[in-house]
Amino acid sequence: MKPSLLFFVALILFSSSTITHSQTNPAIADKIIRSSLLDAKGYKWLKELCEIGPRLSGSENSMKAIKWAKAKMETAGFDSVWLQPVMVPHWVRGITEKGFISRSNKFANKHLTVTALGGSVATSSKGISAEVIEVKSLEEASKLGDKAKGKIVFYNRPFDNGLVSTFEGYGKAVDQRSDGAIEAAKNGAVAVLVRSIQSSYDNFPHTGSVRYKDGITKIPAAAISVIDADFLSQALSNEPTLQVAIQLDCKTLPDAQSFNVIGELRGTQKPNEVIVVGGHFDSWDKGCGAHDDGAPCIQSMEILDLFRRLNIKPKRTIRCVLFINEENGLKGGIEYGKFAASSKEKHLAAIESDRGVFSPRGFNVTTDSATFIKLQNWLPVLNKAKIDWIRKGGSGADVGQIKNAKALFGYIPDDQRYMDVHHSATDIYETVHPREMQLGTAAMALLVYLLSEEGL
Amino acid sequence: MKPSLLFFVALILFSSSTITHSQTNPAIADKIIRSSLLDAKGYKWLKELCEIGPRLSGSENSMKAIKWAKAKMETAGFDSVWLQPVMVPHWVRGITEKGFISRSNKFANKHLTVTALGGSVATSSKGISAEVIEVKSLEEASKLGDKAKGKIVFYNRPFDNGLVSTFEGYGKAVDQRSDGAIEAAKNGAVAVLVRSIQSSYDNFPHTGSVRYKDGITKIPAAAISVIDADFLSQALSNEPTLQVAIQLDCKTLPDAQSFNVIGELRGTQKPNEVIVVGGHFDSWDKGCGAHDDGAPCIQSMEILDLFRRLNIKPKRTIRCVLFINEENGLKGGIEYGKFAASSKEKHLAAIESDRGVFSPRGFNVTTDSATFIKLQNWLPVLNKAKIDWIRKGGSGADVGQIKNAKALFGYIPDDQRYMDVHHSATDIYETVHPREMQLGTAAMALLVYLLSEEGL
Repeated sequence: MKPSLLFFVALILFSSSTITHSQTNPAIADKIIRSSLLDAKGYKWLKELCEIGPRLSGSENSMKAIKWAKAKMETAGFDSVWLQPVMVPHWVRGITEKGFISRSNKFANKHLTVTALGGSVATSSKGISAEVIEVKSLEEASKLGDKAKGKIVFYNRPFDNGLVSTFEGYGKAVDQRSDGAIEAAKNGAVAVLVRSIQSSYDNFPHTGSVRYKDGITKIPAAAISVIDADFLSQALSNEPTLQVAIQLDCKTLPDAQSFNVIGELRGTQKPNEVIVVGGHFDSWDKGCGAHDDGAPCIQSMEILDLFRRLNIKPKRTIRCVLFINEENGLKGGIEYGKFAASSKEKHLAAIESDRGVFSPRGFNVTTDSATFIKLQNWLPVLNKAKIDWIRKGGSGADVGQIKNAKALFGYIPDDQRYMDVHHSATDIYETVHPREMQLGTAAMALLVYLLSEEGL
Repeated sequence: MKPSLLFFVALILFSSSTITHSQTNPAIADKIIRSSLLDAKGYKWLKELCEIGPRLSGSENSMKAIKWAKAKMETAGFDSVWLQPVMVPHWVRGITEKGFISRSNKFANKHLTVTALGGSVATSSKGISAEVIEVKSLEEASKLGDKAKGKIVFYNRPFDNGLVSTFEGYGKAVDQRSDGAIEAAKNGAVAVLVRSIQSSYDNFPHTGSVRYKDGITKIPAAAISVIDADFLSQALSNEPTLQVAIQLDCKTLPDAQSFNVIGELRGTQKPNEVIVVGGHFDSWDKGCGAHDDGAPCIQSMEILDLFRRLNIKPKRTIRCVLFINEENGLKGGIEYGKFAASSKEKHLAAIESDRGVFSPRGFNVTTDSATFIKLQNWLPVLNKAKIDWIRKGGSGADVGQIKNAKALFGYIPDDQRYMDVHHSATDIYETVHPREMQLGTAAMALLVYLLSEEGL
């Protein structure tokens, strides 16, 4: 095969010098990387954050974490640190989460590992016991008609591990969890069990939000671990009339006062041009939200700290925003978006880290074509921290609310292990690798540095 | 090598839809990836291999593993499977590995976690007890003069975690381990302790080979865990005259008969053109050599199995070679290199996987400039399995012996976690992630497929 024509176009572009290296000081890039890897300050902060516990929106823990982050930013000497008030949904899991086979010739009283989906209503205090009907899709559930009446609908379409992208695998399975209760309730089901959406095979159920719709009965919704989902499916094929009992005492309280945590370093030359970097500070409550999204929030905090401790004075303002309530409401992102829209500042760019803290791979960006080409010039610098590409693509739910920014970035680390831990009890400090986290911090810090130095 | 700007320009162009894709059937690439990820046959094989135990050259275990691999290849229906005889060094660890502080005001009898370096001579049966002198480099050791006489030289230069590449970190620390005993013995030292070369911070010492030189006394050499190295260093600064005892009963037996394991699928159109893919089948003996280099060997085996089970008939011959004795002799690689040099076959290309089985990043290649440019055209196909680049660089110790091949490749997975486990008791099945391993298998299978279809 001949080398492609476009490869030679690349050669021509190269030789005509239409693409130049970034003008930024390469020694500073090296210092940023080295300090991030060696000091590993963020990784130490993560341990403290995880010791507070999970940070469900509206919870006491989330308020503790908010105070912790504000104090950290103040101690680190950021130029300004403040809390942006926002009201958030306040769902609480409660104490009781039980699942078991309640009627069966062979498996009576067999325990099933379940966990309430976020936002689920409770069962009655005695729980629900009903026959189970297994489906693989919303469509199949909607066609059940009267067959679903009085039953528990069991959504059991597996995560497709044959896909290279685990986010694609998640995306193709998640409708069962988010909309399964609505479809089942339409046909008179009394509850739904949803196969845990995860790439790993274990007995930890993964939670996540469930939606309800006005006018359709809200029925209890729980995730069941993949091992127990396979067990239940097998048991049902032998004994279709077995019954499963579910008992949940979760509930939704009135909206609670909460806050986005914001800290910034003021630009020395163009303070009115703002670069936002952030993640969401709330988490689900089965683990401690280490990968999702505690560590990414801390990466954002440490980027500003890196500038401080290396005495790099940013030309433009760098602002770390820890958005509250991404998981079940997006209230923090929306509130910041309103502020950005009405502010006299210019939001130059925003970077979101909400895909865990594995080894850096690249950045997604939403921007215009000229900016997209300009950004490619920065790759030789970014590659020092293992950023191999900048591609057109979505940024993130929170920074996506900053509608007037010139460029919205999503940090993309390797994703092969993320869906093992996502929304589950395994999303803990111990599953974060210090070098992977800190190299990601460096990668984003380099992008922030380039944005601050060169603008867009 | 650092990626050139040209590389990034090429990448930009590849990411646009106008690029000429390779002529190979994209549906086949997708099938290869899907089958690797879903069947995960190699990951299952790895469990069996690790249950055999570590595979030190010349050991009984290594022979069991060789028979296991041969049987697997035969059962998988490869066209030919054979063993290539080769004599290998036969070092055995023995039973006794003790380290402790033998004389001290404060720390007498404190245990020190040590392990013999591969190839080390034994201590006397009663062990050695001597004062310790700490150095940070070979140069410092060579300048000790008489001060080293009768003492244990303690090499304690840490792994540099500030470097992005953990292989660079390893490379900058490893001279203490490989040549430390020679330098210390020149000045009359009785043994060396070498700080474990690793990126993690734990109490598992990492082994690896130590060299001796004719005419210079062979003194016992052991690795000490990083935690205990820091302890010892601190203790020495308080009490420079403390003594450490070391007791090792390792020994070198006469060379043993061993084998490279070879299996191939014969090319349907150009059987005389051979593509080798392989790793080294021997391992160190503290863990089970899962990442180094059992899983990579199995990746090579499964590549051929993928062709078989997907009924892909390769145009050129594909040969899996499991080289024996890379760790402490390279005898297998040298033997295969001799065979390749004298064979009437044309060795088109060879691919080595010897950097663990983490997520795919790219390929290093040693080849001529025209071939290098041609290879860039394959990136859109390889990128399906997360290969982001092909760069000029070294391939690997074993395939590097195939001097007449047109292109020598090194498979480069992510390296942030490799040096945590390398040569230690933590290099076990449980530290291998199934998706990361299987995606790597797919990535190399795609390269093998392209080489077989299109040649070079």
